Amino acid sequence: MVAESPVAQDPQAIINDLLQDDSPIRLERLAYQPPLIPVFREGVGALRPLEGFNLEVLKAARDQLPYVSDNKLVQIVPGDVLQEHPRRLGIVLSGGPAPGGHNVIAGVFEAAKRAHPDNVLIGFLAGPKGIITNKYKEVTAELIGTYKNSGGFHMLGTGRDKIDTATKMEQCRETCRHLELDGLVVVGGDDSNTNAAFLAENMRDIGVQVIGIPKTIDGDLQVPGLLQIPFGYHSACLSFATEVGNLNSDCKSDLKYWHFNRLMGRSASHIVLEVALQTHPNVVLIGEEIEEKELTIHNVVRLIADVIVERAKRGMNYGTVLIPEGILEFIHEINMLIIKISYIIANYDKEAANSETFHALPIEDQVQLIDNHDIWRDYDSRVYMGLPTELQRGLLLPRDSHGNFQFAQVRTDRILLDMVATYLRKQRGRGIYKGTFRSQNHYYGYDGRGTFPTKFDCDYGYNLGVTAYSLLANGCTGYMAAIRHLHLPVECWEPIGIPLAPLMHLEERKGRLELVIAKQKVDLESPAFKILARERQRWALEDHYRFPGPIQFSGPSADAKPISLQLNALALAG
Amino acid sequence: MVAESPVAQDPQAIINDLLQDDSPIRLERLAYQPPLIPVFREGVGALRPLEGFNLEVLKAARDQLPYVSDNKLVQIVPGDVLQEHPRRLGIVLSGGPAPGGHNVIAGVFEAAKRAHPDNVLIGFLAGPKGIITNKYKEVTAELIGTYKNSGGFHMLGTGRDKIDTATKMEQCRETCRHLELDGLVVVGGDDSNTNAAFLAENMRDIGVQVIGIPKTIDGDLQVPGLLQIPFGYHSACLSFATEVGNLNSDCKSDLKYWHFNRLMGRSASHIVLEVALQTHPNVVLIGEEIEEKELTIHNVVRLIADVIVERAKRGMNYGTVLIPEGILEFIHEINMLIIKISYIIANYDKEAANSETFHALPIEDQVQLIDNHDIWRDYDSRVYMGLPTELQRGLLLPRDSHGNFQFAQVRTDRILLDMVATYLRKQRGRGIYKGTFRSQNHYYGYDGRGTFPTKFDCDYGYNLGVTAYSLLANGCTGYMAAIRHLHLPVECWEPIGIPLAPLMHLEERKGRLELVIAKQKVDLESPAFKILARERQRWALEDHYRFPGPIQFSGPSADAKPISLQLNALALAG
Repeated sequence: MVAESPVAQDPQAIINDLLQDDSPIRLERLAYQPPLIPVFREGVGALRPLEGFNLEVLKAARDQLPYVSDNKLVQIVPGDVLQEHPRRLGIVLSGGPAPGGHNVIAGVFEAAKRAHPDNVLIGFLAGPKGIITNKYKEVTAELIGTYKNSGGFHMLGTGRDKIDTATKMEQCRETCRHLELDGLVVVGGDDSNTNAAFLAENMRDIGVQVIGIPKTIDGDLQVPGLLQIPFGYHSACLSFATEVGNLNSDCKSDLKYWHFNRLMGRSASHIVLEVALQTHPNVVLIGEEIEEKELTIHNVVRLIADVIVERAKRGMNYGTVLIPEGILEFIHEINMLIIKISYIIANYDKEAANSETFHALPIEDQVQLIDNHDIWRDYDSRVYMGLPTELQRGLLLPRDSHGNFQFAQVRTDRILLDMVATYLRKQRGRGIYKGTFRSQNHYYGYDGRGTFPTKFDCDYGYNLGVTAYSLLANGCTGYMAAIRHLHLPVECWEPIGIPLAPLMHLEERKGRLELVIAKQKVDLESPAFKILARERQRWALEDHYRFPGPIQFSGPSADAKPISLQLNALALAG
Repeated sequence: MVAESPVAQDPQAIINDLLQDDSPIRLERLAYQPPLIPVFREGVGALRPLEGFNLEVLKAARDQLPYVSDNKLVQIVPGDVLQEHPRRLGIVLSGGPAPGGHNVIAGVFEAAKRAHPDNVLIGFLAGPKGIITNKYKEVTAELIGTYKNSGGFHMLGTGRDKIDTATKMEQCRETCRHLELDGLVVVGGDDSNTNAAFLAENMRDIGVQVIGIPKTIDGDLQVPGLLQIPFGYHSACLSFATEVGNLNSDCKSDLKYWHFNRLMGRSASHIVLEVALQTHPNVVLIGEEIEEKELTIHNVVRLIADVIVERAKRGMNYGTVLIPEGILEFIHEINMLIIKISYIIANYDKEAANSETFHALPIEDQVQLIDNHDIWRDYDSRVYMGLPTELQRGLLLPRDSHGNFQFAQVRTDRILLDMVATYLRKQRGRGIYKGTFRSQNHYYGYDGRGTFPTKFDCDYGYNLGVTAYSLLANGCTGYMAAIRHLHLPVECWEPIGIPLAPLMHLEERKGRLELVIAKQKVDLESPAFKILARERQRWALEDHYRFPGPIQFSGPSADAKPISLQLNALALAG
């Protein structure tokens, strides 16, 4: 930055300043201290049962997690716990980065240090692998001072390893025993919190308590009435909303482009829902709605194209479209193809020698092999052959290490765009469409994961960390830390502990039923979705573009919260 | 936004507030009043010759623009011009949108109203076409109040039409005569300012003065010593830098992705230069440097791959790469292919019937046709056949209406990424590369054009508008408004008028030499480039990621300016 009176300053000093790695905003953000929830202002808090919620535990969960299945829902109230001996705690970041993660660490650390100056926090490196292989660094006040309120997970790094075998579990026990840990905080999504439940059950005998923290930009880790949204969602959505809002502004100025935007979020369309409410685009696709209405891919193409045709009649050959990354999974006929092809690939590869896998075959042979398979019907072939080449190829792409289809690798935005263009050409031939269709496609995902957290996520992440410490100090294990009433100011927030066991259900993974935490999809009966469904009809043909702008850290806009969260809370109350 | 005490408020009122089109930041920005440059505080200003610069006019320019070729460089100093009769002025936005455009209009409007309350400003709609076809709306205080400090060009819309025929020029004269205009402000890049010069020359006899305003996010409209950078560049660069900085954060957290980023900017790499200084990525490609060093595309691939191999040796299988959109134009062997293929296509289409154009042929026939052409040498075939299929196809894509190759349509990021992957596979075979290469490619362009302008661009755009009014009031025509000393605070800014004629040179367009304003490429001798070239060696192997964060409108970060601009100004001074 240029100082007030730059002529008086040494130019070389200013140049050095401009070249340093720390940007002004990063330095500015380090100075922000998130406010504590009132109950934490006098001490670590005490526990009280929270009544009025009926959390049932599945038999399978009770069988596999007998100890933690007894946990009851708890609320944290003012109070303190006398701590005689210093505690040694661990923390691990797991899965994709989410804005606010550094503040969770800061929250745990500062709560621990307030409780006892000799408390120690160990940060495991590069995700759960760090526990398995005993790689860590101690979290210090200096480290916190370098990362507080900044984006990413790079204070410790993250990873996707699962603690899913007896050997890995034993290695974790060994690490925690070796480090003499009393507690462990696991920051992650549904799978990581599943891990946390099993770790809690299996480390109980060595005195290690385990608390999970709800993280995921996708927003699909929710517990009705108890957990409105995980941390990270708001920042990522606002980051995407900035980009989509800018494209609104661009297309409304240039008057000649349709922007097709694919937004991250595979299993649920929460991100598209929030970004739509932030930006008022012309077309909004919600996966859960497409599934519920049993739309085919050609129905979806028409849904978009009809808006384009109608706007062209009004002289508007421009617009913005929001597409959830995981849309193909919600289109029944495509999902069936994905499941069948995954099955055929897995079976073929099981029989095949290492070098002769399915994907070593030429494309033609891959298609032939699928076509000849017992589970492949004529109807499947007809659907498959009716798809554009890029999608046909996409469906054949290598699966991930769990045998899952990799949605992020298919350019659904581009495929839909091409199908829409083809459809519009036909409509032009029939004299129905007279506009010009010029388009750009965009994919926003990784950039939003790495953004600076909003003030909301700074405060939320920090207080989740403090809540986790409180639960540990109160002797809890097998819980997820959560905060109620997020739509209200921090003054009104209520920290709670949600038992992990009742969140679990049975899900098919790699061909067998596994006990995992259920993902929450967009509720088509929720106020936020219903309001979107109503509003988007106006947005389609008239221009109601909203420009949310870049995330602000001071001024009135800095106090923003997710619109969907507020609509759900307020519409239910009102 | 949630108000301080939301429980006390009517939920429906809050919901309505959440659903309105105007976002909190948009409303907040409307309240900002850009400060006036001191010389304008007492009146419209007076003119004085600015000495010390040698601006020569080409003979061709003097022949085609005899009147405006006599213009001398002028500086605006304190003073006032007594205005007896109200003036009627027009303004037009031209070319791609750039942040700050609405403030140019605000600057002209408010300066005009301050000078005489009955002055009138007419805004032409959808670009130069609006002048040709007499489509406009009057700019009012209310309109300004709705758009000030906001992004995009949608107050009036924009377009790319050129006033390049005698008929169109006559239509413009007719419109201006009909509207009884005294002056016209043309906001645009090199081509639009070329238009402005010809309009000035041709509307002199009907008393219409014409002033150009330097706009372009690409940053390639510069005049050494007089115009450091056009408006819009800073905001677009910061918008891209936010995204790239977020990807820095993401890859440093997840530790497994290489992010290849293609950034807008065709003819010059100014955007990549600034974004690199803002983000400190691992690999930075500058087109002008590639051209100067005569690198082949395989050299460029190695340049990237060598960093990947070296980082893998250090256990770092992640990173960020910046690629200028127009890179292919700077690679001599590829550019030769582009020029030859464009020539062959143009010649074929000239002879062909409407339905039998080059692009109606099957790909194989297109290739055959090129292969058999006289200007196509064996060497060209060898280069062409050595390229990946997507690039081969890309080179054949339809040209734009001027016969130009459309760089934005070729996914250079993806092509380079695939070539790098192929090269790494070979290096792995040789035992040289032992890392894992997982990657994501991104294209950032349109979203940055539509961002809210930074405070710098708000102030700059506004004062450019005021400068344009001052030049008009002082009787000038055929000038570009500019402001010197942009690296200093607004208090030190100096408004000037740069004669347009000396900026023009002869350039081949559609096969013939035309008089146009020269684009400024990145100067490889400039301090900013030299500092980048030095610093990026450190950035390659160590991690020096900088996270510039989202654009801020309050707090210390709000006063940011382009780093490249400051380095050039300060290093020259220091």
